[in-house]
Parts: sequence; C-alpha cells; structure tokens
Amino acid sequence: MASANKPAAPKVPELKNLTIENITENVHRINSQCADPRLKYVMERLVSHLHDFARETRLSFDEWMAGIQFLTQVGQICTDVRQEFILLSDIVGLSLLVDSIDHPKPPSSTEGTVLGPFHTHDASTLAPGSNISADPAGTPLLVLCNVRTTSGDPIPGVKIDVWETDSHGKYDVQYDDRGDKADGRAVIVSGEDGMFWFKAIVPVPYPIPNDGPVGKLLDRLGRHCWRPSHMHFMFEKTGFDHLVTALYIRGSDYETSDAVFGVKDSLIVGLETVSPAQAKQYDVKEGTQLLKYDFVLVTDEETKKLRHDEAVKAMKGLGREGMIIVDGLPVPDVD
Amino acid sequence: MASANKPAAPKVPELKNLTIENITENVHRINSQCADPRLKYVMERLVSHLHDFARETRLSFDEWMAGIQFLTQVGQICTDVRQEFILLSDIVGLSLLVDSIDHPKPPSSTEGTVLGPFHTHDASTLAPGSNISADPAGTPLLVLCNVRTTSGDPIPGVKIDVWETDSHGKYDVQYDDRGDKADGRAVIVSGEDGMFWFKAIVPVPYPIPNDGPVGKLLDRLGRHCWRPSHMHFMFEKTGFDHLVTALYIRGSDYETSDAVFGVKDSLIVGLETVSPAQAKQYDVKEGTQLLKYDFVLVTDEETKKLRHDEAVKAMKGLGREGMIIVDGLPVPDVD
Repeated sequence: MASANKPAAPKVPELKNLTIENITENVHRINSQCADPRLKYVMERLVSHLHDFARETRLSFDEWMAGIQFLTQVGQICTDVRQEFILLSDIVGLSLLVDSIDHPKPPSSTEGTVLGPFHTHDASTLAPGSNISADPAGTPLLVLCNVRTTSGDPIPGVKIDVWETDSHGKYDVQYDDRGDKADGRAVIVSGEDGMFWFKAIVPVPYPIPNDGPVGKLLDRLGRHCWRPSHMHFMFEKTGFDHLVTALYIRGSDYETSDAVFGVKDSLIVGLETVSPAQAKQYDVKEGTQLLKYDFVLVTDEETKKLRHDEAVKAMKGLGREGMIIVDGLPVPDVD
Repeated sequence: MASANKPAAPKVPELKNLTIENITENVHRINSQCADPRLKYVMERLVSHLHDFARETRLSFDEWMAGIQFLTQVGQICTDVRQEFILLSDIVGLSLLVDSIDHPKPPSSTEGTVLGPFHTHDASTLAPGSNISADPAGTPLLVLCNVRTTSGDPIPGVKIDVWETDSHGKYDVQYDDRGDKADGRAVIVSGEDGMFWFKAIVPVPYPIPNDGPVGKLLDRLGRHCWRPSHMHFMFEKTGFDHLVTALYIRGSDYETSDAVFGVKDSLIVGLETVSPAQAKQYDVKEGTQLLKYDFVLVTDEETKKLRHDEAVKAMKGLGREGMIIVDGLPVPDVD
C-alpha cells in the first residue's frame, strides 16, 4: 500500500518479468507514453537497434562496462573547443550519413560534407581579399569563388564561414594560447556578383585529435587518423539551405582514406597557379597557388521538397509505407 | 605527391564516393583492418545498427546535434560517485539485457538483475549480525539469508556486498558530506553453514537521480523515475559466477513499473515479522521486520557451458550459424 508521503504509483503499462526475449517490447511499451510522436519513433528505433546489437553480439558485461567507460571518457574530454562525440560520430561515418540525409542535393548543386569538430562562432567578418591566415610558414594561396543558385544566378550577401589548418596541420583552437584570437578562419560575405575571395595558405593533411578515447579506438581498429588537405566552407543565407562543405586539394595524401569519410569527387579541386594578370589584379605574388570553385546553393523550398520526397522513398524502400512525413521526418501514423 | 615530412599514406582499403547507400559498407571495409576479430564483429554490428537507425528515422542534423549534446552532458555529469551512462543504459533496458545474456541462469538458481549506479568499492567488511544502517528513522529489518549451490550445498566464505537506501530513499553517496563514511552498505561473508545475516532498515522506493540529462529524457518520454523498494546483493567467490542481484519488497509502489526494468517475480519477497524466539536469538526487538531468502549460485563451469550453449542457440536463431563461439562470445569464422 502506498504510504502517505510517497507519490501514488502512476497508471503506467505493467512491465512483465523481463527476459532477453521480451525486454525490447516492454521498453517500447513504457516509452509509448511519450507525447511527442517523433521522439517516440526515434526512441523506438534506437532501443530496437541497441537491443538487437546486444543480442547479436551477445555483449558481455565486461564489454558493456568498457563501452560505458569509453563513452564517459569521450564526454569528459569535451570542452568548449573540443567535441569528441562529434569526432566519434565522424569516424564511424554517422556525420557524413546524417548530412547526406538532412541536406539532400539536386545533381546541379554543391554537395555537403562533414562539419568536423573545429568550427567556431568567433571568427571575424573580413573584407573581400583579406588574408585569413597569419602563419608565415604557410604556402600562400589565393581563393577565388562564386556562389550561385541552381539556375546560375549569383547570390549576393551570403555569409560564408571558412576555416583551415595552419602549415603545421593544426587549427587555431588546438593551441593552448589561442585565447580569443581566431586565426586561419574568417567570415566572408559574397558580393553583388556572387563572388567572394580571400587570401589564405594551402591547407595540409593533419591527424584528427588522437590523444583521446577516439584516437585510442582508431588505434585498436588498425586505422590511421589522418585527413587529406582541405578547406572548410559553410554558407548561410535566409531562403537557402544551410550548406556545410569542404574543398579537398587533389592529390593530397589520404585522399582515398579520409579518417572521417568526408571526401567526395565533386569536392576535389586541383590547385592552379595565378596568371601574371591575376597576380596584379588580386595583389598577390606571381606564382601564388590558386583555388577556384563555383558553389551552388539550393533554396529552402527545393530542399524541403527533396527531403520530403526522399523520406517517402526511403520509407517505401524499408517497407514502412504507414509512416507519415512531417517536415521531412517520418513519424508513426497514430490515427 | 607526399612531401618529405609527412608520413606516407598507408595501404588501406580505398574509400569511394560516400552516399547514404554505400557509407556503411565503406566503414566496414576500413574497420576490417582491425586485428581483433571480436572487436571487428562488435564494431561491424554497432556501425550497421547506428547507420540503419539514422536511415530509418531520417535523422536530422538538429536531432543528431541534440544527441551529441545529450551524450556530452551525460559524460560531463559523471563523477566518481555518479555514473550517468549506467543510468542511461538502465532506463533503456540495456543493463538488464546485458546481465541476462552474460549471466545465464539454470532454472534452479537465483536470477540476476541490474547493478545500478550506486555500488561502491569502499564498504567495510562487517561481522555477521552487524547493523549496516546508521539511519535512526528507518524501520528496523533483520535479514537472514543462505547461499547454496544448485545441488543445495552451503557455500561458505562468499563475499557478499549489500547496499540499500536510507529512509529518505537516498544512498549514502548521494549526500555531499558523505566523505569516506560508507553507510547503508557493507560486505558480509557467509559462514560455514552458508548463512549470512545482518541488521538493516526496510528500503523504500526512490527516484533515480533525475536532476541530470537522463532525468530530463525520462520526463520527455512521459515516464516516472521511481524504483520500487529493494536491497542490492552482489556475490563473489572463486569458482562461482559473479551474481549481481536484488530483492524487491512485495507490494511496494512501482513494483510493476520499475524505471530501470529490474524486477523479476523470483526476486520479489514478502516481509515477515520475527518470532519471539528469533527476536531473542538475533537480538532484535519483537515485531521487527524480517527478510529471508535463499540464494543459489552457479559455478563458473556451469555458467561457461550455459553461456556457450545459449550463444550457439542465439546465433542459430539469427541465421548466423557461421559464427564461432570463443569464451561464450561470437566471432566471425575468419578461416
């Protein structure tokens, strides 16, 4: 009998004697009280997969405990400037997968890729043509880009976050003495003609942070922790789908074995050398390396429609035609 | 071309252009370099399930980021005396499942259940009959137990960890001023006749720690965070399978809706009242509540055989007859 000073036991689905065979349906039953149909579906799939994983591997207590300790270490090494869970997601291909699902691209547009753990929100907005890198040891690079719609029209006023490694393969946030002095990163805004340009250095291959639990995991898997040379770009403008992408320098080491699965053919670019006319026009030394690319953004409307259509197609492919698609996301048909 | 001061790109499987459809096989391909066949199999199943989860839910970037932040918070709230990842595992039924898989029990033996996050390693070993609780507000309880083999023979010298809440529903480690003074917990050793006994208080239902991310998740799922009254027991003796279990007080609130899925019929015990003779024999007041239970341990040999047989059966049920079972754990037949 409930004593007076304890809350009465609420009316909830009764759990039965729980076994390897029936635990999953019982967890689903108690989670079915969730009022948010999307969260309910996400949890239903998560619990099913987690339990199937344990059943298919016959996961031992020691392995489970190793997993608990691993995840705890991943969480505890995270700081404002280090996100080890994103790194973990990256090295198991989840980040690339989620980006591909959430930002479907029509064939004519620029593909997305992994955000990675080194984006910050404190980069300064610099004038066109500014040098984003203070590293004197880097190989100078001129970056000349355009940003256009799928119809080929220039898009002015796009806020473009760019970030890259220094010549030692490190992002600014990896230095203890960085403080609030951003380097190797900037926000550039596209002009009326859709053009944006800046000076930088040629990025170099680098190891992802490998002094933490994710590095140890890669080691145990016999994998290297290197990424090929690349420069990150993130595009934001109202009315257009947020684009997180990167350009990969053709011929870089690790081009076909990126530790975080980010490389796509359409994002690999060969470096050129500036012409004497370009050197003069953009005020760089003759012989400076040149990175050119035309980015194509997709409108929110296009993305929404594509996301919806692909979700419908995916649910059909999975034999889940009963799902309804709300804002591009499947939820169970609860009617 | 590789420059002189970078390590040459190692010979690894070449990753192709990665898409929603082919990312999984590519992650498997690069993880297939792992020298440990068991880790390789565990990762193969983990990555497959993680990716299927994302594909089946069409997981959005925002949901993924919410997940990253949730896991980070879970990791960061962990301390020496708080293990939020175990709590998370508990509330999704994974802990119960792993215990059931790893510690299969023949019908004649005591079932296991969830360890929970409140076990510590600093409880004192107390003499038989000691009082493990310093809480004057608790309802006194006499605990009289035996520990036997599946053949009914007493097992002397078993190290038994017991731990319980105080009368406020809190474990000692939940008090900031606990320091190294363990309370409501002890190690008791079984006597020659397999008996162990101690004085305690009647445990009460309690909410699992709900001021952290796991509590918030339960809230969003519309679930309560209560556990029914129970006392934890952990048995250790060389030659016997480690038993983690608990006894649940019959008729307790939440008996059929334990937030961590731990209750099993065979572990529910009705409290009795000591007889006048018992009161005298065990030096407790007349009318004291009495908890009696006979625990049955399984030998390591029995458990190993059962674990092997159940793994073989499970792999057959999953259509994975090709797996070989090493120490009870499936690994791919790599020959």
